[in-house]
Amino acid sequence: MFAVEVRDHIMIAHSLPGEVFGPAQGLHGATFVVDAAFFAEELDADGLVVDIGLATQALAAILQPLNYKNLDDLPEFAGKTTTTEFLCRHVFDGLAKAARGGALGQGGMRLAKLRVQLHESHTARAWYEAPL
Amino acid sequence: MFAVEVRDHIMIAHSLPGEVFGPAQGLHGATFVVDAAFFAEELDADGLVVDIGLATQALAAILQPLNYKNLDDLPEFAGKTTTTEFLCRHVFDGLAKAARGGALGQGGMRLAKLRVQLHESHTARAWYEAPL
Amino acid sequence: MFAVEVRDHIMIAHSLPGEVFGPAQGLHGATFVVDAAFFAEELDADGLVVDIGLATQALAAILQPLNYKNLDDLPEFAGKTTTTEFLCRHVFDGLAKAARGGALGQGGMRLAKLRVQLHESHTARAWYEAPL
Amino acid sequence: MFAVEVRDHIMIAHSLPGEVFGPAQGLHGATFVVDAAFFAEELDADGLVVDIGLATQALAAILQPLNYKNLDDLPEFAGKTTTTEFLCRHVFDGLAKAARGGALGQGGMRLAKLRVQLHESHTARAWYEAPL
Amino acid sequence: MFAVEVRDHIMIAHSLPGEVFGPAQGLHGATFVVDAAFFAEELDADGLVVDIGLATQALAAILQPLNYKNLDDLPEFAGKTTTTEFLCRHVFDGLAKAARGGALGQGGMRLAKLRVQLHESHTARAWYEAPL
Amino acid sequence: MFAVEVRDHIMIAHSLPGEVFGPAQGLHGATFVVDAAFFAEELDADGLVVDIGLATQALAAILQPLNYKNLDDLPEFAGKTTTTEFLCRHVFDGLAKAARGGALGQGGMRLAKLRVQLHESHTARAWYEAPL
Repeated sequence: MFAVEVRDHIMIAHSLPGEVFGPAQGLHGATFVVDAAFFAEELDADGLVVDIGLATQALAAILQPLNYKNLDDLPEFAGKTTTTEFLCRHVFDGLAKAARGGALGQGGMRLAKLRVQLHESHTARAWYEAPL
Repeated sequence: MFAVEVRDHIMIAHSLPGEVFGPAQGLHGATFVVDAAFFAEELDADGLVVDIGLATQALAAILQPLNYKNLDDLPEFAGKTTTTEFLCRHVFDGLAKAARGGALGQGGMRLAKLRVQLHESHTARAWYEAPL
Repeated sequence: MFAVEVRDHIMIAHSLPGEVFGPAQGLHGATFVVDAAFFAEELDADGLVVDIGLATQALAAILQPLNYKNLDDLPEFAGKTTTTEFLCRHVFDGLAKAARGGALGQGGMRLAKLRVQLHESHTARAWYEAPL
Repeated sequence: MFAVEVRDHIMIAHSLPGEVFGPAQGLHGATFVVDAAFFAEELDADGLVVDIGLATQALAAILQPLNYKNLDDLPEFAGKTTTTEFLCRHVFDGLAKAARGGALGQGGMRLAKLRVQLHESHTARAWYEAPL
Repeated sequence: MFAVEVRDHIMIAHSLPGEVFGPAQGLHGATFVVDAAFFAEELDADGLVVDIGLATQALAAILQPLNYKNLDDLPEFAGKTTTTEFLCRHVFDGLAKAARGGALGQGGMRLAKLRVQLHESHTARAWYEAPL
Repeated sequence: MFAVEVRDHIMIAHSLPGEVFGPAQGLHGATFVVDAAFFAEELDADGLVVDIGLATQALAAILQPLNYKNLDDLPEFAGKTTTTEFLCRHVFDGLAKAARGGALGQGGMRLAKLRVQLHESHTARAWYEAPL
């Protein structure tokens, strides 16, 4: 299996309701450094998993509506707890849709798997990985 | 598959008997930066793989008896060669026991897999990964 | 000149009023990975710049009131723009006070300089450095 | 599954023919930081996945003919597009041959899997991973 | 003294003529991860060293003519040896000119110092630092 | 001022006698990732601060007698407390001697300053920096 991975980041505010979150129940925030990995069984004729330019654009397009926002105010997250794990899945779903919808070009159609990883500090990160 | 990973570290002395270890046969030491990853197929109602606070405490509890120690002096490692790989498994076993024993809360019961990674320098690391 | 540096981090929300901040004018947030460096011309009798345990505690004590908070709500920052640079200075001032006040032990009295660095992402950081 | 990983690097020139590569069609270059991971189901009698010394030598031997070279001039890459993904596979094939040929010692014979990862910048990397 | 630093990167080919360069005399290449640091004695009314947006654009504008190029072909480098140190100075000179010419806004006029750092691998980097 | 920096590492055992060291009084160990920085006001005719090959060899030669050793057993450290700060100075002194003695070539004679940095974990490091 081949993979390519690109990195971007967002800076957001949010609160995490629920006793399990302790002091993170209050409004706080995070820088999430985001790694999106694209997997394919074989390379295309150009020796690529996917067009990195398109992949980078697709990731940026998914992150843009979150960046510099208070996630508690976004209608799409109403009633959701925007944990790091949850946000991994959110970005994954966006990339999966982009891949199937053609936004990653022909290479996007051949992808076997995606992994989205969010680093929240130098000591903690989360990821979601699944076949397409 | 979802995962969350937390980082801690230990500073230990040990020797590695056996010709294959060359100069590392003598008493020397290492800083091991330890990454413990917890995997689950689905998130819980709070949007979590596992309670990160409990996971961090469990990891610290496993590392504490090793930290600032000469591993050659620890009864539990008598007759063992404490390679980086071996120590990955040792920490894994401790976390698996913590998960099954309830020390990670309800989320610990649902874990599908663990991975324990030890970085021994900027150029070498090892890990052990297995289903629970 | 000798130096020792320790690392901690905070996760905060804030907004940055002023046209120059563009999209960061809205409420958003950041993980700040904080490096605090302590400088001394000579080592003490134990071969140390400063007691690292005390230095780590002093840094944690300064960061604790900010961690998991919305900085816009903190009275001490009323009317201030909590840029990364500003926060470097805030942490520096706290450490300088701790050093002069004896919270870093005898070693803290001998310090020549401090530097406080905040990493806000994998591509941007700020710092403040000054003699004591 | 156990794994150990070692790091090395190369500095090469190349061009990437094909419209998809945009400005990278011209002659340019890269530093590739290379991580080679060796996987085994069980540790050997010394508590190792593989002899790290031999693994490091095998990786260096594969990288040496590429280091400080213009890949466009190497006969073995004639007619090939030397993308990061392609080079991951090239190094993988070399390590697989070394493992099967005995250059990694007895441990090399027991390896279950290899992964070769090339970091091309602080924001992009690729890898190839397959069973042996 | 305050500082802010931003990161970008370039991927270039070049050769380094001169016996001292050994195998690097041939045409090869590098990824240079570039950190540009801007220093000021005091913050401006917005709590900033310099407008980070303008600083990032200025850095990108200086790097763009080098990125994806063979430096041996660039007229401006004719007769020069494009070592990492030399390129640090080249980027520094560009940023100094941008600062004095107003491209960094008012904040650029107040800058006390610049530092430009190029990381050529995980084990080597160079920098140039000077007052403005 | 120009600088170049190279990285190496050592894995050692030691104990730190003195109440201030708490649990580190016992025999334990560390991986020290070592960054040695060489500073010069001007570049030489080849565009270099110093011959990186010679600098790397000089650093390795200083580290070799410490690597895979118990520092408590080394005669040269008898009666010394081998703190991270102390070891920075030890490596600095070795490099200063190498520079003045000609082991770094002509470039070594022109050096204005050295800095030696030891990273002991992902959260702590120390350095020593002085003019030559």
